[in-house]
Amino acid sequence: MSPPESPSPPPRSPLPTVNAHPVVVVGTGLIGTSIALALRRRNPPTPVFLVDRDPAVARRAAALGAGTVAPAPAATPLVVLAVPPAAVPAALLAAQRRHPRAACTDVSSAQADTQARAKQAGCDLRRFVGGHPMAGREVSGPQGARADLFDGKTWVLVPSPETAPEVVEQGSRLARQCGARPVRRTAQEHDAAVALVSHAPQVVASAMAARLADADAAEVELAGAGVRDLTRVAASDPGLWTDILQANAGPVADVLDAVAGDLSRASAALRRAGSADIDAVADLLRRGNAGRRRLLP
Amino acid sequence: MSPPESPSPPPRSPLPTVNAHPVVVVGTGLIGTSIALALRRRNPPTPVFLVDRDPAVARRAAALGAGTVAPAPAATPLVVLAVPPAAVPAALLAAQRRHPRAACTDVSSAQADTQARAKQAGCDLRRFVGGHPMAGREVSGPQGARADLFDGKTWVLVPSPETAPEVVEQGSRLARQCGARPVRRTAQEHDAAVALVSHAPQVVASAMAARLADADAAEVELAGAGVRDLTRVAASDPGLWTDILQANAGPVADVLDAVAGDLSRASAALRRAGSADIDAVADLLRRGNAGRRRLLP
Repeated sequence: MSPPESPSPPPRSPLPTVNAHPVVVVGTGLIGTSIALALRRRNPPTPVFLVDRDPAVARRAAALGAGTVAPAPAATPLVVLAVPPAAVPAALLAAQRRHPRAACTDVSSAQADTQARAKQAGCDLRRFVGGHPMAGREVSGPQGARADLFDGKTWVLVPSPETAPEVVEQGSRLARQCGARPVRRTAQEHDAAVALVSHAPQVVASAMAARLADADAAEVELAGAGVRDLTRVAASDPGLWTDILQANAGPVADVLDAVAGDLSRASAALRRAGSADIDAVADLLRRGNAGRRRLLP
Repeated sequence: MSPPESPSPPPRSPLPTVNAHPVVVVGTGLIGTSIALALRRRNPPTPVFLVDRDPAVARRAAALGAGTVAPAPAATPLVVLAVPPAAVPAALLAAQRRHPRAACTDVSSAQADTQARAKQAGCDLRRFVGGHPMAGREVSGPQGARADLFDGKTWVLVPSPETAPEVVEQGSRLARQCGARPVRRTAQEHDAAVALVSHAPQVVASAMAARLADADAAEVELAGAGVRDLTRVAASDPGLWTDILQANAGPVADVLDAVAGDLSRASAALRRAGSADIDAVADLLRRGNAGRRRLLP
């Protein structure tokens, strides 16, 4: 196994290739296992060491072909922390003690909070680059993982002011090796963007779906594709998402307030039902058209 | 052409079949043209007469194979009014003058309002059954129509207290002939249900999409499948939807207030960020899980 500083493999390796640098994946849930599977489908397959706080979960990921459950060599050049955001600082500290020369990255969807807590925990931010693949599924655990989960998707890399350039490059390479398109953002840019395009939509989907929880079966029977698509992500894991939302609370709350305000104004206009009032509803629908157009390819 | 009262075709018809009763479709937009196309794919194809206030639109539907642009015989047994809800009473009155023995149905998504206005306009409610196929697309016009739009979908029939049983049966037969599953509701039951599963979700999708209208490109670039699915219906026609929402204002406003309240409480809990407060967010996500499960097959 070559140390991270060496761009070429050690001379005694029988099939030397820069692609075969081993990777440690800590956390073999949906995202960690999908990353591992994406790396395993390469030719030659990237050696992947799987770690999970629940060894049975790591073994399930290994059984899916995601890699090996075995202690990784200290010189392993890249560690991916695919753990919930609250767990990143402790996991990073442990990884940096075990693999002092490794580049480390995570899959956190709230980066400013993670950076601040990692620094506070005594982590070495020079060898850490935040990472956030913009892909997921509303299921959890290794059994939901897919080798193609990141294909063609955006993968945000979030260097701290201290992160070494070669560590950022290792994060970019990981993203490309998983089939994704790496883009770079500051932690603040990332957090505001994901509040808008991911975190607030999660809460909005949940709030709409929550209205159905106690509805009559005769009402739910009339549901069509629109509300099904709208509420798809409402099936996501509440524990994980509470953690994510708490870690990006301010930017998410700003978006939720704006959405709630628009809904309250639309409701008031409908109740008044004058033609001038109804223009406010038409205006919201037109702004929705304009926003939706931004998402078209 | 057999009159609606006669269950068997006239003796001189060379290929007598109960399926070949002709139908008039008034309004050749997305829904009207899809109904016509669904009837045309039958064997033998149902004779369909196409009418639109814009003759060019009716000709476009005819060019797609939806039927014939020609005056329908007065004895045509079924008229489908596929016009916006506000236009139904006048269109129904005109259809009942032209086809005095026909059963008439519509595709309105707000039924109590339509019934009340139709009665006020002097329509004969004995020969009218409200209809609402629970299918649609976020595009409009005949070019978006699909023969299979209603396959396997629910089609709500809404008799008024005066509607004759055989007229309800004609509405049910139309739904089945279009591939849908007819269900029966009162106008009040229908309107409360569609406020919950269709109308409020439309406004919620628009309010979320509206946040993207003025967002930075660097933010929108991070959008993934979740927000795309959530906002899909926000591409719908604002004019048509303003009309629909206004016609079902009270039930829609009730749902929007509940959603806005949940979003405001989630936002407040995130801003306070204490662990007791965050439980309110976790609870909303769990209620979203429960509601979403109601939509699973």
